[in-house]
Amino acid sequence: MGVLTMKEKVFRDPVLNLIRVYDPVILDLIGTSEFQRLRRIKQLGVTSYVFHGAEHSRFAHSLGVYEIARRFADHLGENYRTKMPGDSLWDPNERLVLLCAALLHDVGHGPYSHTFEHIFGSNHEEYTQALITSPETEINQVLRRVGPDFPEDVAAVIAKTYPNPQVVQLISSQIDADRMDYLLRDAYNTGATYGEFDLSRISQLMRPYVNGIAFEEKGMYAIEDYVISRYQMYVQVYFHPVSRAFEVLLQHLLMRAKQLFNQTSAETRIAKDFVFPALRPLFSGQVSLKDYLKFDDVTLLANINQWRDSEDQVLADLAQRFLDRKPFKSIEITAGTRHLLPHLRQLIEQAGYDPRYYTAENDSFDLPYDDYKPHADKPRTQIELMAPDGTLTELSKKSALVDTLTGRTFGDARFFFPKEMLTQDSVDDVMAPIYREFQQYIHNGKLVDPSNR
Amino acid sequence: MGVLTMKEKVFRDPVLNLIRVYDPVILDLIGTSEFQRLRRIKQLGVTSYVFHGAEHSRFAHSLGVYEIARRFADHLGENYRTKMPGDSLWDPNERLVLLCAALLHDVGHGPYSHTFEHIFGSNHEEYTQALITSPETEINQVLRRVGPDFPEDVAAVIAKTYPNPQVVQLISSQIDADRMDYLLRDAYNTGATYGEFDLSRISQLMRPYVNGIAFEEKGMYAIEDYVISRYQMYVQVYFHPVSRAFEVLLQHLLMRAKQLFNQTSAETRIAKDFVFPALRPLFSGQVSLKDYLKFDDVTLLANINQWRDSEDQVLADLAQRFLDRKPFKSIEITAGTRHLLPHLRQLIEQAGYDPRYYTAENDSFDLPYDDYKPHADKPRTQIELMAPDGTLTELSKKSALVDTLTGRTFGDARFFFPKEMLTQDSVDDVMAPIYREFQQYIHNGKLVDPSNR
Amino acid sequence: MGVLTMKEKVFRDPVLNLIRVYDPVILDLIGTSEFQRLRRIKQLGVTSYVFHGAEHSRFAHSLGVYEIARRFADHLGENYRTKMPGDSLWDPNERLVLLCAALLHDVGHGPYSHTFEHIFGSNHEEYTQALITSPETEINQVLRRVGPDFPEDVAAVIAKTYPNPQVVQLISSQIDADRMDYLLRDAYNTGATYGEFDLSRISQLMRPYVNGIAFEEKGMYAIEDYVISRYQMYVQVYFHPVSRAFEVLLQHLLMRAKQLFNQTSAETRIAKDFVFPALRPLFSGQVSLKDYLKFDDVTLLANINQWRDSEDQVLADLAQRFLDRKPFKSIEITAGTRHLLPHLRQLIEQAGYDPRYYTAENDSFDLPYDDYKPHADKPRTQIELMAPDGTLTELSKKSALVDTLTGRTFGDARFFFPKEMLTQDSVDDVMAPIYREFQQYIHNGKLVDPSNR
Amino acid sequence: MGVLTMKEKVFRDPVLNLIRVYDPVILDLIGTSEFQRLRRIKQLGVTSYVFHGAEHSRFAHSLGVYEIARRFADHLGENYRTKMPGDSLWDPNERLVLLCAALLHDVGHGPYSHTFEHIFGSNHEEYTQALITSPETEINQVLRRVGPDFPEDVAAVIAKTYPNPQVVQLISSQIDADRMDYLLRDAYNTGATYGEFDLSRISQLMRPYVNGIAFEEKGMYAIEDYVISRYQMYVQVYFHPVSRAFEVLLQHLLMRAKQLFNQTSAETRIAKDFVFPALRPLFSGQVSLKDYLKFDDVTLLANINQWRDSEDQVLADLAQRFLDRKPFKSIEITAGTRHLLPHLRQLIEQAGYDPRYYTAENDSFDLPYDDYKPHADKPRTQIELMAPDGTLTELSKKSALVDTLTGRTFGDARFFFPKEMLTQDSVDDVMAPIYREFQQYIHNGKLVDPSNR
Repeated sequence: MGVLTMKEKVFRDPVLNLIRVYDPVILDLIGTSEFQRLRRIKQLGVTSYVFHGAEHSRFAHSLGVYEIARRFADHLGENYRTKMPGDSLWDPNERLVLLCAALLHDVGHGPYSHTFEHIFGSNHEEYTQALITSPETEINQVLRRVGPDFPEDVAAVIAKTYPNPQVVQLISSQIDADRMDYLLRDAYNTGATYGEFDLSRISQLMRPYVNGIAFEEKGMYAIEDYVISRYQMYVQVYFHPVSRAFEVLLQHLLMRAKQLFNQTSAETRIAKDFVFPALRPLFSGQVSLKDYLKFDDVTLLANINQWRDSEDQVLADLAQRFLDRKPFKSIEITAGTRHLLPHLRQLIEQAGYDPRYYTAENDSFDLPYDDYKPHADKPRTQIELMAPDGTLTELSKKSALVDTLTGRTFGDARFFFPKEMLTQDSVDDVMAPIYREFQQYIHNGKLVDPSNR
Repeated sequence: MGVLTMKEKVFRDPVLNLIRVYDPVILDLIGTSEFQRLRRIKQLGVTSYVFHGAEHSRFAHSLGVYEIARRFADHLGENYRTKMPGDSLWDPNERLVLLCAALLHDVGHGPYSHTFEHIFGSNHEEYTQALITSPETEINQVLRRVGPDFPEDVAAVIAKTYPNPQVVQLISSQIDADRMDYLLRDAYNTGATYGEFDLSRISQLMRPYVNGIAFEEKGMYAIEDYVISRYQMYVQVYFHPVSRAFEVLLQHLLMRAKQLFNQTSAETRIAKDFVFPALRPLFSGQVSLKDYLKFDDVTLLANINQWRDSEDQVLADLAQRFLDRKPFKSIEITAGTRHLLPHLRQLIEQAGYDPRYYTAENDSFDLPYDDYKPHADKPRTQIELMAPDGTLTELSKKSALVDTLTGRTFGDARFFFPKEMLTQDSVDDVMAPIYREFQQYIHNGKLVDPSNR
Repeated sequence: MGVLTMKEKVFRDPVLNLIRVYDPVILDLIGTSEFQRLRRIKQLGVTSYVFHGAEHSRFAHSLGVYEIARRFADHLGENYRTKMPGDSLWDPNERLVLLCAALLHDVGHGPYSHTFEHIFGSNHEEYTQALITSPETEINQVLRRVGPDFPEDVAAVIAKTYPNPQVVQLISSQIDADRMDYLLRDAYNTGATYGEFDLSRISQLMRPYVNGIAFEEKGMYAIEDYVISRYQMYVQVYFHPVSRAFEVLLQHLLMRAKQLFNQTSAETRIAKDFVFPALRPLFSGQVSLKDYLKFDDVTLLANINQWRDSEDQVLADLAQRFLDRKPFKSIEITAGTRHLLPHLRQLIEQAGYDPRYYTAENDSFDLPYDDYKPHADKPRTQIELMAPDGTLTELSKKSALVDTLTGRTFGDARFFFPKEMLTQDSVDDVMAPIYREFQQYIHNGKLVDPSNR
Repeated sequence: MGVLTMKEKVFRDPVLNLIRVYDPVILDLIGTSEFQRLRRIKQLGVTSYVFHGAEHSRFAHSLGVYEIARRFADHLGENYRTKMPGDSLWDPNERLVLLCAALLHDVGHGPYSHTFEHIFGSNHEEYTQALITSPETEINQVLRRVGPDFPEDVAAVIAKTYPNPQVVQLISSQIDADRMDYLLRDAYNTGATYGEFDLSRISQLMRPYVNGIAFEEKGMYAIEDYVISRYQMYVQVYFHPVSRAFEVLLQHLLMRAKQLFNQTSAETRIAKDFVFPALRPLFSGQVSLKDYLKFDDVTLLANINQWRDSEDQVLADLAQRFLDRKPFKSIEITAGTRHLLPHLRQLIEQAGYDPRYYTAENDSFDLPYDDYKPHADKPRTQIELMAPDGTLTELSKKSALVDTLTGRTFGDARFFFPKEMLTQDSVDDVMAPIYREFQQYIHNGKLVDPSNR
């Protein structure tokens, strides 16, 4: 296949200690312009506004996923190497496609993907596929050295259409190299110890079987601990109300910018200058692969930094709130209190804030774990435990705690508004009566009906 | 003084676990626009090209220095609180000025300060002073709430002109809150364990005395360990040849951009557009405090990202090398081999590279520790050990290892050049003979005279 | 009160970093003969047979509980110091009684308490009380320096009869200094990372109120994480089947020795020599406080070591199995399979093993958490969450995961037998048919009825 | 050879995470009675009196040395596997002898070896050899399964007479698996962070060559850091004055017991009963291999515990001081002050203490590193750095810090005496004048001549 092995090269990694590379293909993929771009995209976007250590990049995460996948492949190769076709054990020939897919699985991410894609309709998964399969990328050229179909194979693993389910599940299932790296790395950089779990123990429990990767039943509690760590990271970090306030802020900021950009479409070229050249294709809605590769955190943030001085008051104010870390405040809302929101929006408008830009509802809910539901929108590969005789049992059947989490969403719905609405010491302020009325709707951090108190 | 204490607020920090704030002044300083800007400035600049985890910000470091200073103040207040004037013990009234100075000591830093200041002649220390004392900043307004002279006091601590040497040394000496935080934080984020030392032990050894802070003699080895950790970080991280290659690259890139900007000065406004508006004051050499606050990593990097497409070949090429992580290669040079460099530069020029932009000499040398040398350019406050009877001895008198490091520079001098000069497999290349001749000057990573081999 | 404060003394601790002592009373208690004896008693008894790092002593644990309690007291004193009688805030006068109780809470433990007390009917809680209140101990003498009633006060805190419920709950509730230290310390020494939780976060959430200590509701997930860590340590470490096999072995060994000792009661003094003088009072059933203080791990183990050469075959064999780490094997049993055990015992007897000494049933079940059940045998103090307005809610009402654990026992029932019953390669062995029959009752580590398979 | 490989078995280790075993021979060696005995021997002896966490056993250390050696073997096997005889690369056939030697290198240790061997003239190295080569041990039987000469081969590696210097140096040189494990493990359990270094980096730098194992020159600073960590552990942990005080105490205690035992030799058997049967062969000077295997910490400590009640006042008092942690105090002495000791001993005798048992001089000096000195008593294998072209340079030639340590002893000489000599508040005590005179000889923790002050 023309692939040489080489003496190991190592990258020093604070989470996994050493990242070890033995394949020139991997080393060359890391050196491509498209992969290096991930240095300029933060893994956790706005989360660093809450956990100031969380500045780590998607570059570091991608190396980590590679390294974890490599350790999995080593474990499987040493202990469960296939002896004859059809024995459902691990085929060492799958090693390289696994490692490439692990390394490249996030290569299509843009800046602050969650928010960004919501506003501009881009899709990082499609870009990941394109960056791997399009002949114009450096990545594609490196992969083609392995074989003409190799880029498609790597893309298929990431798209979950690759025929060998073991390879797919090691990268993308409910317990895979991707999730394991981000939990450990996010825990390390936020300082959130509850995100830690026992990587080497879990990897040691892996057992290949015909439909993928199972885990030895005797290690059930280690798997349970991983699922709960994931749940803890959701509720404590990923769904943090202040992070979500910054997502809301960024979203409204981009929405406003897009609106202004489109309003000026009949006008001169100069007028559109408030959007940097690198971002204009995005605002125009016509994005080539080459254009896309110019999007990164630094370009977006530098542009927002310039918008502080915008003549548009709303854009300038939102940009400043974002950069100077002035989050919207929020309260918890429920089905029973949601009907009160129109009145709150009215009060906020009376206080001088355009509710389209200064209020938001935001739901963060996720399933920490689910069993396989064939009729679901996106059925999940469930976690299987294997008994000594090979019998499989789905995890939640054995773990009461996982059963509690299974198919159950966690998170909350919140209403966001300007902090100024909570001003209390402004008796002389003409807005004071509005603020006071607004504040009657809040108790213990929740939206309440004052007439019921 | 109008300063209220409050229930503690905490920041989750991966290095120090919790950063605890009890003073509203500190909380408000953290909330200023000038302090929040430090989120967009990396602590270690180009180092993340070598240690990919090192993405941490000066914001995190500044919080860390505050927290360490707070722990020092607590230790001194609990164990060595002054009982009467002149007893040279710790005065709790110095607590707030210490904490503010700790928090703000780096607030004037710009992007990639080392390189940047070299090219543009700016000085982050002067900007730190200005940001604290100028009435136009938010920081100044918060500090003035404590008292009219308080901003000057805080600035004096940072400038080392404050009358109480204990306060000054806790922030700025050879063993201070600043160095302790950056060593621990840089070690944590690079994964370089040799940068760790025993913070709580060292803090527990502190003893105030009339000329500053000494350390109990019985803990000499803990202090020694700290000095050696610092030395290890210098030689393994801060002086890493590849980091220095990126400093060289960035420097040449900015030099080229500055040159182009000045060439176009007679031309139209549009022509200068290749420099972002936020950076133009810098290139023009007229920078107000307000201008300065717009400089940050994201703006600089976004601009470099745009220069990839510059019509100027050199600017475009250097920008691409920088962003795609294509470092110059380097070799060690000595006084005995430096005379060979002109010939190497000639070969490099023959190979098609302008030596002004594609070669460099770079010396990284530093003193990990020095005793007090009254006639030195910048005399250093030496580390004093205190015996049970109060006698002081300078550290290197007790530690053979520190004595070895004292007054001794570490580091090396290197020559940087394009990696292409090492090309080996290009027999048909017309440049091949040039490359081959060049390579004869290199042996074991050092510059050698081929006629002597 | 005659209690002086002093400059801090520190103990280096691998788990809590520094243990800081400011009170001479604490320092003197640590120096007593009774407290030093805890160095010779392992915290986790036979667990080191499974997790070889778990050699830590009750001495280290007791220092750790003291240190955690001290941090709690500091937090409460800094943030919630009482201002007037009846405000239900923290009274700093309770500090010393809290710290003494924390330090001494385990001082009455004997070697391998769990097993030991089962065989000899001793009770470490009673001994703890006696060691604190009896005038003959060094501990009592140190405590009386504080005041004549102080020993009784300390004993009352440990007995949970002390009038201030805040002090009691900090030492002994479902989330207290004792549990927090042992989880962290056991996790550190076993290497079981799932036992870790966020000590400083939890301590920061504490709020004193009239009936004890509550936790701020906003930190619910940190408390939940602690409860789950505790559950994980139960199921993965404390209930480990091999640990329990060694408990069973030790129990049978001591039972046999006791029986032999009593058989020889009519005989000469020499005959009883197989029991060390220090252990004889225990075997005779007449134990003074002075006698009790001589019991420790080393004496028991040294005696067992001598029993290897006993003329009594059973005692010698069990001693050897214990010391050479030859655990009984075990299988899971249920209510539905328990009726098969008599037949298994019969087979084991046929194979040459006395079932009284070579088989056992052992149930390890515990409640990781429970809410307050007023009619329960030992009602537990439930964990209360406090809303901003002071409203309390019991933890399991807010946490679905804790609700799953609440009032629910975890663990399993197992049947233990000699490993030899699993011998497979002994076709010529006359016992082979017995072994083969026995093995038909085992499938996937569980007891099964072979007639149903 | 009859050696099967198997699916990996793991041991959970707090320091190295997982200890992985792939060879049945290794697993069976761990299961032998002789190896299990190491559970009852503490790695650091009396050090836990100073660092209370240091209760770890030689069992854990031995597993650790095995695991580190295994990682070395994997690294060498993957990167430097021999291709033809005489190429000086790593021969995978050496793997098993390496691993067995690593596991068994300390198997002959007795309790508190340092002190014990000093008094009783035993030698753990000889016992290690005997336990491996004597046909009566379980260890020997397991090793012989590999081949008839295999036990001798393993013993030769430990004795450094094995022909392949690579195998010898991996276990026993100045940078080997043994030292690496004990530094990391002792650091972990004492909490002494300065003992940490970068194990995986160092292992990655290893290069086999004809005379052993060298390290890539580019990693010089990692090696330097290891040497300095070792030095730090010496001066901060292993030479700690209070540890040495307990060594002195134990030594005097055993000396007294030995003397009493020999005095009673003409008397009845009963009279010798104060020494436990298991220890009597030692006291009699006739120790068989079988006897030796009964010596362990628990037997010795249990015996000392019984001596508390001895009728011999000195034995009883020393036993109590040892068990209740009442160390002798000590002061630093030098060649210039040593002449004052006879007078101090006289004062101590006047105060009622027999100087033979209540005073001691103790020197702890060691070489943290040395280069090869062919004429030295025990020439050391020096650490070699390898340049890209294969040239070797001895470490201290490249590292100024290591050069400072090379061939230089560190430590100090101390004089030990009863703490009572420092009594200060006993004005009415008839001994007070003696104490006062004694105390005039001490200043800043050092012995001084009062006539010179």
